[in-house]
Amino acid sequence: MNKFAMYGKLTAHPGQGDALVQMMLEAANLLDSAEGCELYIINVAEDDPDAIWVTELWRDAEAHAESLKNENVLALIQRCRPLIAGVEPVKLRPVGGKGI
Amino acid sequence: MNKFAMYGKLTAHPGQGDALVQMMLEAANLLDSAEGCELYIINVAEDDPDAIWVTELWRDAEAHAESLKNENVLALIQRCRPLIAGVEPVKLRPVGGKGI
Repeated sequence: MNKFAMYGKLTAHPGQGDALVQMMLEAANLLDSAEGCELYIINVAEDDPDAIWVTELWRDAEAHAESLKNENVLALIQRCRPLIAGVEPVKLRPVGGKGI
Repeated sequence: MNKFAMYGKLTAHPGQGDALVQMMLEAANLLDSAEGCELYIINVAEDDPDAIWVTELWRDAEAHAESLKNENVLALIQRCRPLIAGVEPVKLRPVGGKGI
């Protein structure tokens, strides 16, 4: 299996979690037509409304890299920046399971 | 949205990552018929072959809790225990996105 997965933890500045969630839902909409993007799920940590985790699954690492060249995606990243205090990516190699 | 998600980090004892992955793929097979289980993806961290991350998505928290009462699941958890050095669950509230 050549797929690429990532959990992207975005920590919003205090109280900005909801606003960041709305922007990340916009990002998911932008990726709706990206065929290499198989999952892009926006989650909020149960214990912290300012901790947003994005579950990403891509056909391969190249499809993920390609998405970061998309003008609309880049513009959205710029709009998100003022809301974000920190970013912690967890890069993963999916090996199988249910729903993949 | 009433769904429940979790990233379950399982740290295997040194060198036991592959064996643990195989058991977790068995767990995914057991859950194949569980209708409340929407995703159960087994991943290995890119930077550590002994760090296994399970991406779980459930219809609701009750469906997840119910699965932990299944005899076959409980037996498999028992078989996994000797391989596991640590468990760190990240409990999440999914709010939307692609593939959900």
